[in-house]
Amino acid sequence: MSMSQGNVWSPVITPFGSDLSPDVERLVSHCRWLISQGVGLAVFGTNSEANSLTVVEKVELLEALVAAGIPADRLMPGTGSCSIGDTVTLSRRAVELGCAGVLMLPPFYYKGVSDEGLFRYYSEVIERIDDARLRVYLYHIPPVAQVSISLPLVERLIKAYPSTVVGIKDSSGDWSNTQALIDKFSEQGFHVYAGSERFLLATLRAGGAGCISATANVNPEAIARLGKTWQQADADEQQASLNRVRAVFEQFQMIPALKAATGHYSGEKDWLRTRPPLVELSADKSRELFSLLDAEHFAMPDLPSTGV
Amino acid sequence: MSMSQGNVWSPVITPFGSDLSPDVERLVSHCRWLISQGVGLAVFGTNSEANSLTVVEKVELLEALVAAGIPADRLMPGTGSCSIGDTVTLSRRAVELGCAGVLMLPPFYYKGVSDEGLFRYYSEVIERIDDARLRVYLYHIPPVAQVSISLPLVERLIKAYPSTVVGIKDSSGDWSNTQALIDKFSEQGFHVYAGSERFLLATLRAGGAGCISATANVNPEAIARLGKTWQQADADEQQASLNRVRAVFEQFQMIPALKAATGHYSGEKDWLRTRPPLVELSADKSRELFSLLDAEHFAMPDLPSTGV
Repeated sequence: MSMSQGNVWSPVITPFGSDLSPDVERLVSHCRWLISQGVGLAVFGTNSEANSLTVVEKVELLEALVAAGIPADRLMPGTGSCSIGDTVTLSRRAVELGCAGVLMLPPFYYKGVSDEGLFRYYSEVIERIDDARLRVYLYHIPPVAQVSISLPLVERLIKAYPSTVVGIKDSSGDWSNTQALIDKFSEQGFHVYAGSERFLLATLRAGGAGCISATANVNPEAIARLGKTWQQADADEQQASLNRVRAVFEQFQMIPALKAATGHYSGEKDWLRTRPPLVELSADKSRELFSLLDAEHFAMPDLPSTGV
Repeated sequence: MSMSQGNVWSPVITPFGSDLSPDVERLVSHCRWLISQGVGLAVFGTNSEANSLTVVEKVELLEALVAAGIPADRLMPGTGSCSIGDTVTLSRRAVELGCAGVLMLPPFYYKGVSDEGLFRYYSEVIERIDDARLRVYLYHIPPVAQVSISLPLVERLIKAYPSTVVGIKDSSGDWSNTQALIDKFSEQGFHVYAGSERFLLATLRAGGAGCISATANVNPEAIARLGKTWQQADADEQQASLNRVRAVFEQFQMIPALKAATGHYSGEKDWLRTRPPLVELSADKSRELFSLLDAEHFAMPDLPSTGV
């Protein structure tokens, strides 16, 4: 991934129909909008409810996105699952379709596993795919996965697969960990992405790559702008403004709140739907969210809408 | 499930070949041995490394077990996964094959989800399968899944699906929770299984159904005997003896230790293999395990072996 493509990625929210099946058309038009706003497409992330989708659904969606003309080099699908087999199936298809890379969770069911076991997992996946085009971005999100990717594990994986294991998304929320990853690995070309735009400026100033952030679904242009102009004089001001919007969303369950906002500003109520075990935002909570966003003069311009 | 079939179930460990694919023949012969020792087959449990298998692998294994003559009414496969689609696929096949029931994890990727979201998940699964033969046993294992099945959720599910949601496995390790489940729901015919034979006698005395326990893979006959003879005078003595063996295994990583013991007593070293992210027991740890087991005069009689 070159910097010219931007350094901000969105874990794209997934729209569902009334039978809870993925709404391909709506997803395609949302992806087109996100690209027009300057962010890349980390589809099948945590905020995409990716782990509520089957691997078959994910393969089909990825194929549909590319078939619809979404540029594959702007796609970084999440492919990590609990089983080696599913991770290989989806990652291999992503490589074949020309995706920029894959964002790979560790296997997250068994807890307290060793770095040796996680190394073997990633190693087995990479060797089964056996494709020089594969670019793996590790996905460290201990608050959700409850299985961590330690610095020694990152080091061992880079050493074993230097042209394949090329980056990490750090969603620990712990800046000292992001800083340590940058300090240790960025110089050799390893891409460290913060898991929230709260850390975007700090990440870029420290020598990191950018961010992959939930709220890039709703505030993409402003986040992408800081990603581009972080060396300008108003960077801290931009960061402060991003933080205010982020702080609003953080007061709610993130995924339902992202969908509520997207539904509200597009007029497309189908966006509100989540797959169980997630539940849509209540009417009260939604009103509270919109009122807080109004106070920030928040908008989602040019969002695709049928004007419902 | 009638009591005549026994009230002790084993989450059957899964043997893998050198390419990490499931070894069907070895699994079939281990299942036959477990049945001969008096325990039922909760295949695809936590201790089966079920979450390191794809749903396709699980469907194929289940079909192979039934085709090999394993009685379906002695099978209670684990079928719960993060996605509704995968849970439905495997559960439906289990029903079609005539399995006694299915043991269903909650979706375990997203944390901090609500009872409402979990209710919708189970509800959606049950209504999609839409088969009067379906028998769901809920699987409460907060130390691993990190998503809990609360008493109010159990109550709501029983009320909504009284002939379908018929039991629970409580692997919380918290006896007060097991006791509360029994006190609240056993009288109406709801089956409460403890997740360890440590609680077998207490569960049966309180009016619960039995246990589904990892160590029933290695100590099946003795556990099944207490399950049958718990009203006899020597029941407390039997329980104490089971606890001593259990305590040995609890000093090690459970799944690798179960496989090490099975490999050791059968002479079949292929048993040692685990799928990443799990790692087999080290040689040192294995020696320690066998020496502790020898001190307990532990044996696994009549274990299938090719005499390697």
